[in-house]
Parts: sequence; C-alpha cells; structure tokens
Amino acid sequence: MSVTAKPITRVVDELSRLPGIGPKTAQRLTYFLLRAPAEQAEALAEAVLELKRNVVLCERCFNITDRTPCEICSNGEREASHICVVEEPLDVVAIERTGQYRGTYHVLHGAISPIEGIGPDELKIRELLGRLQSAQVEEIILATNPNLEGDATAMYLTRLLQPLGITVTRLARGLPVGGDLEYADEITLSNALAGRSQI
Amino acid sequence: MSVTAKPITRVVDELSRLPGIGPKTAQRLTYFLLRAPAEQAEALAEAVLELKRNVVLCERCFNITDRTPCEICSNGEREASHICVVEEPLDVVAIERTGQYRGTYHVLHGAISPIEGIGPDELKIRELLGRLQSAQVEEIILATNPNLEGDATAMYLTRLLQPLGITVTRLARGLPVGGDLEYADEITLSNALAGRSQI
Repeated sequence: MSVTAKPITRVVDELSRLPGIGPKTAQRLTYFLLRAPAEQAEALAEAVLELKRNVVLCERCFNITDRTPCEICSNGEREASHICVVEEPLDVVAIERTGQYRGTYHVLHGAISPIEGIGPDELKIRELLGRLQSAQVEEIILATNPNLEGDATAMYLTRLLQPLGITVTRLARGLPVGGDLEYADEITLSNALAGRSQI
Repeated sequence: MSVTAKPITRVVDELSRLPGIGPKTAQRLTYFLLRAPAEQAEALAEAVLELKRNVVLCERCFNITDRTPCEICSNGEREASHICVVEEPLDVVAIERTGQYRGTYHVLHGAISPIEGIGPDELKIRELLGRLQSAQVEEIILATNPNLEGDATAMYLTRLLQPLGITVTRLARGLPVGGDLEYADEITLSNALAGRSQI
C-alpha cells in the first residue's frame, strides 16, 4: 500500500504491534485519530510517553505504581499481616475490583515455567521471603492463575512457606458464575465436586 | 480503581476513547506497553504526534496524504480521465488493494445524510465539479457505500454529472465471494439476480 502516506503507515505499524490489534483494526484506529481533534491524539501520545517515565515498581509488593511504597502498601488501613500473591499487576486490579480484600499484595511478575525458561529466580520470590522477615505475616493467599504454571508456582511457594509456620491458602476452584454445567470441563467440574459445601 | 497509578489510568482512559476499544482491552494494552521496551512506547507516541503534524488533504482528490498533490494524483501512469468517487480515505486503500484500478480518486469525506444534517455542501462535491472543468474526464465510477446514504449520494451525483456528457458507472451489486446463498438478504439476492451475467 505505497499510496498511503508515511505518517499513516507508521501509526498503523506501531498500533499493529499491540496485542490483539491486527492490521485492519490498526488502520481503523489510525483513521479515527486522523479525524479526531488534535488534542485527543496529543493526549494519547503524551499519556503513553508519561507511562514509561513516571511508573515504577513498588519496593515492597512490586506492583506497578507512580510512587513507592505504593498506595496499598502505604495505606495504614490495609492489613499488612495478609499477603495475596499474584502473577501480574493486572491481577491486583481484578482482586481490588471485588472490594472484598483488605490485605496487601505481592506481585511475582510471572509464574514458574520450565518451557519458557522461567525459574523461581526470575520471579520476585526472594523478595517475598524478605518481607516475611521484616513484618508479622499471618496468612499468604496464593492467587496464581488456575493453570499449569500457576499451580506449579503455588506448589513451589507452599513448600517454601509452610515450614515457616504461616497459613498458606489458595483461591477456591469451582464453577464460574453464569457458567453452564453442561459445558464445564471435567477438571472444573471435579474441582467443583471436591470443593462442595453444605448449604 | 484508585489503587492504579495515575499514569496508567491516563493511558487506559485515552485508549478507551478509541473506537472498538473498551476499558478491558485498554487496560490490557496499557500493561503490555508497560512491559514493552521504552523505545516501542516512544515510537507509538511519536508516530501519533507526527500523524497530526505531517498529514494534509490532497488539493486535487482530497485523500489523506503527506504531500499535495498526493502520490496517486501526481503519478503520470494513472489515468486522470477516470475518477473513482469514494466516501472515505479508507475506501481508497480498499480499492488500491485490489490492484485492478489504474485511474484517480476523489474522496467526498462523507455521504449525504439528511438525518445527520450532512447535505451536498458538506461534501467535496463542488471540488469534484471543479476537477471536471480543468481536466478531460471520461468516466466517473461511483464507489459510495451500498447503503441508504451512499445510494442517495450516488443518485445525487448521477443527476449532476450525466448532463455533462460523462459516463457515470457504479460498482456491481451481488453476492460477496465466500457468502452463502442461504444467508443472503433479499436485497442482495435481488441485486444478484438482476445483475446476472451469461457464462
């Protein structure tokens, strides 16, 4: 498409590099930006630039934040005795959205995956153990993803943490709300059966 | 989600304003950018900024371009005697992709739509008539969208152009390739019937 102006192809190319955005969507977005007021395009560009400049990892929980320690770690009302261990910063956002958790977090930045060459040393596990020495921690909730890598990470952490006399829990497995029994896979259904509770 | 750092929410907000990108997708893209190398984020931001700075409308065909007259209009190998009239710059890209058209274009920047208050004066119709006076035009291909507004615009243009002794054509209507007769709507099927050709 040599007929397309270079500044346009450049934005299309850059947008296409984002996950889930193909060349067609990138083109549609680019032409939308072309029609949008200049302020909107500038606001987007500046927000992206600032994203990289002003964002750091919290020195305590390794969540992505604009100041360290982050808002959650420095909030006196959050129970520092509870640490919820997650794989990614987005998981923190998901759990916060429930409004049900008043403890703190620890972001591993990944999960153990021998295939991808990610071992415990690549994750923020040493830093988690460090937190246990400096603070009184009662419970660690393992909220890694319910998949192979997440489960392997949870198992590894359990073996590390249980000897220290800390309660280690993990999120419940079962049927998702709005799901359909008929279409549930066997493992989910087995989990749901095994975890059944009296009503 | 007050726990999310401000630079992050800013990018999420700006990305959410793009068409087809909801808050969830915006969030996923933002966290992708956070992990991506700083150069990638900067390249995206700069491309967006340059988009607005370096892009103009071609003085002849009103396509979006980085120089005027645009690459197609200034290309001596394109037949200036053929003008393909389209609604949007993206339509030019679509037709160029076929590789079947060697003429020039004229971008109307919209279609006649009384409901949205868009009349002929809001479109580049006067400019199209201007081109007919300065150049020898044999055929005008109306390639407006096959919907109410596009058809109204095509009809309006036909009435203006036919008295000038110019051949006015429009794109064929019929079944799309890969389509299924069973699921074709009545109007498409009627068009396909009416436009049937001998094999």
